[in-house]
Amino acid sequence: MEKIVSLCKRRGFVYPNSEIYGGLQGFYDYGPLGVEMKNNLKRLWWKWFTMEHENIVGIDGTIIDHPRVWEASGHTQSFVDPLSECKKCHHRFKSDDLQSNLCPDCGGELTEPKNFDILMGTELGVIEGEKTKAYLRGEACQTIYLNYKNVLDSTRIKVPFGIVQIGKAFRNEVTPGNFIFRQREFEQWDLQWFTHPSQMDKWFEFWKEERMKWYQSLFNDHSRLSFYKHEKLVHYAKKAFDIQFDGKEMEGIHWRQDWDLGRHSQYSGQQLDYTDPETKEKYIPWIVETSGGVDRTFLFLLMDAYIEEKDRIVLKLHPKIAPYKVAVFPLVKNKPELVAKAQEIYKHLKLDLSIPSVWDDRGNIGKRYYSQDEIGTPWCITIDYQTLEDNTVTVRDRDTAIQNRIAISQLDSYFTDKLK
Amino acid sequence: MEKIVSLCKRRGFVYPNSEIYGGLQGFYDYGPLGVEMKNNLKRLWWKWFTMEHENIVGIDGTIIDHPRVWEASGHTQSFVDPLSECKKCHHRFKSDDLQSNLCPDCGGELTEPKNFDILMGTELGVIEGEKTKAYLRGEACQTIYLNYKNVLDSTRIKVPFGIVQIGKAFRNEVTPGNFIFRQREFEQWDLQWFTHPSQMDKWFEFWKEERMKWYQSLFNDHSRLSFYKHEKLVHYAKKAFDIQFDGKEMEGIHWRQDWDLGRHSQYSGQQLDYTDPETKEKYIPWIVETSGGVDRTFLFLLMDAYIEEKDRIVLKLHPKIAPYKVAVFPLVKNKPELVAKAQEIYKHLKLDLSIPSVWDDRGNIGKRYYSQDEIGTPWCITIDYQTLEDNTVTVRDRDTAIQNRIAISQLDSYFTDKLK
Repeated sequence: MEKIVSLCKRRGFVYPNSEIYGGLQGFYDYGPLGVEMKNNLKRLWWKWFTMEHENIVGIDGTIIDHPRVWEASGHTQSFVDPLSECKKCHHRFKSDDLQSNLCPDCGGELTEPKNFDILMGTELGVIEGEKTKAYLRGEACQTIYLNYKNVLDSTRIKVPFGIVQIGKAFRNEVTPGNFIFRQREFEQWDLQWFTHPSQMDKWFEFWKEERMKWYQSLFNDHSRLSFYKHEKLVHYAKKAFDIQFDGKEMEGIHWRQDWDLGRHSQYSGQQLDYTDPETKEKYIPWIVETSGGVDRTFLFLLMDAYIEEKDRIVLKLHPKIAPYKVAVFPLVKNKPELVAKAQEIYKHLKLDLSIPSVWDDRGNIGKRYYSQDEIGTPWCITIDYQTLEDNTVTVRDRDTAIQNRIAISQLDSYFTDKLK
Repeated sequence: MEKIVSLCKRRGFVYPNSEIYGGLQGFYDYGPLGVEMKNNLKRLWWKWFTMEHENIVGIDGTIIDHPRVWEASGHTQSFVDPLSECKKCHHRFKSDDLQSNLCPDCGGELTEPKNFDILMGTELGVIEGEKTKAYLRGEACQTIYLNYKNVLDSTRIKVPFGIVQIGKAFRNEVTPGNFIFRQREFEQWDLQWFTHPSQMDKWFEFWKEERMKWYQSLFNDHSRLSFYKHEKLVHYAKKAFDIQFDGKEMEGIHWRQDWDLGRHSQYSGQQLDYTDPETKEKYIPWIVETSGGVDRTFLFLLMDAYIEEKDRIVLKLHPKIAPYKVAVFPLVKNKPELVAKAQEIYKHLKLDLSIPSVWDDRGNIGKRYYSQDEIGTPWCITIDYQTLEDNTVTVRDRDTAIQNRIAISQLDSYFTDKLK
């Protein structure tokens, strides 16, 4: 993990937020490579749901919602994290994590678990005394429930259907940590799938398997991915599973039943029923939720991809999520014909094929390979003296380190095939 | 404007946030069509900067930053909005908007302008009495300044270079309104361009023209786009321009000089100099900023695209930003061969070509065209009886309403060319 954190900082994947001011615990910024990788990941997720499945639409809701939302959701009452403090060293621990009632740091006696509200509040309005309390959403999914009726009214969608969203949520975590694993500001990706109650079990199993397949499509080592079955369940849930990487939660598959829409119906006084257009049956749809952490997936993908070989560090990222797909090198930089040819190829890849590409003409080819391996660039193209004679280049594969001679005229189809 | 608001709600572009709870002033959610259009727009902006220009990289910073950031930026002292209240009807107005010191609503006398802090605060930490004050960023650009040094240290970029970011900002606007024009939660897209002071004027003019060209590439009616030259300037600015649509601000081009990096250097005690690798000159780079509103651009694009013709409403959106590119219709839905053929084309477009496409088999073709025109779908494909004989379909153009007969085998190149 320390190696990943160091690589992230050094190569521009992730920086600690506000570092020049000493940092802010639980907040991280994505750097130039990180933002490209994260955007690739979010785009893949979005496309998989909205293009490769039918009856799924997206929304993008605000972070601040009406304060009643958090009463209906139960967050203002119960979104709390029991803590225990050591009476001796005053360190604090999540009570859930504790094995005994003695301090793990100094062995002192711990207080009883106490509840602390972890929703972040704010105030709307500009005039003291007239401000109203509001909250930053503690989970993004609530904005989907709020818009369920709007989506039904403004589209032609019918049950069963899904609404997806990617967006930020905020929690005053007691113990933020493990780099971007547990942050106070983080991004979630949610599917809320609305179904007839009689189909609930079928869809729960469907999405559970489907989501695992999606993660498997991006991770190299499937043995590090697993289901964790929850034994303690909330009262409305028949079952609950996490998809884990190395035993850590990445996504939850939740049986939410009619809990959320029922609560919002009760608290808002609005009818949130669905009427089946054929049978005319009126009911509140039941919900299967798949809710994952974007930052966690990002971190786990780096952990899965990070490999130290004897003479290099290589990030074996799936080409679709790698920040750059191709690096272009002129063999030497003091030979203008080589540089011109290389620039032509580089610009063609970026501008005509929209393939994220990077230029490097520093040092020797070995160092450039090393540098690209470390950030996961799947292919490096070298333009050399032979290129000027026969219009071929070498394309070197990140994972195998094998170099192939390829005609420039073949590059388009070579890369578009690889990236399909 | 009322027609746009109504269309947005009715067809799923934009909904008022928390509507089932009576709404929340200044907050809006993007619906299924809106989120696709907004994502298309953001992707175009991002690609234009990072792929079609050199020496520009992106970042994605957090909404909550270290509270000292907002002291350095001057926001905690001066990010205020002078307000006047009517002594008679107690309505309040932005002092800047007032023409006289009499109330525009009732003619009563107004109070002196008073300052109100419009930064939204929050608190970090879970234990009462130990919480620390923090702010939701009032402008997204600060996160770029915070990471300027990290970007320099982790990439090979040299002055002149740019950092771009798209992200949310929050302001306790006194008078949120005009739909999504002035929201309390909104999204900004910023370029911060770092240059040697001697090149400042050149780059300011470059980006001013370049940004206008970009907006022109998306808007139909260029006469509604204009520059507004600011006469009142902050002390460090030599000039400032807005790009306006119908006389309303969409983006600002700002001469920020070394103000931001200078302040952060002073407040953080960190050196934020740049050393030129060739001349060894040490200096704080000057900054040209182009900072625009994503939601505003979204709104203005709808206003620009919205046209009422005698028998239809049509959104003449640029195909690249239209939520769907293609609609696919079987002429009738009770002829299985037609439906199967249409499904084949629909799935091919979505799954093989990744072209966002929509299916419609309701009512007659005229109604389907009407429905697609209203949401800006550039092309409608109809699969009819002739299709079964000669493998051609009709492709109908949104703007001209002209229908062309095209071979199914030609559709791939037809659409990929159009969408290039």
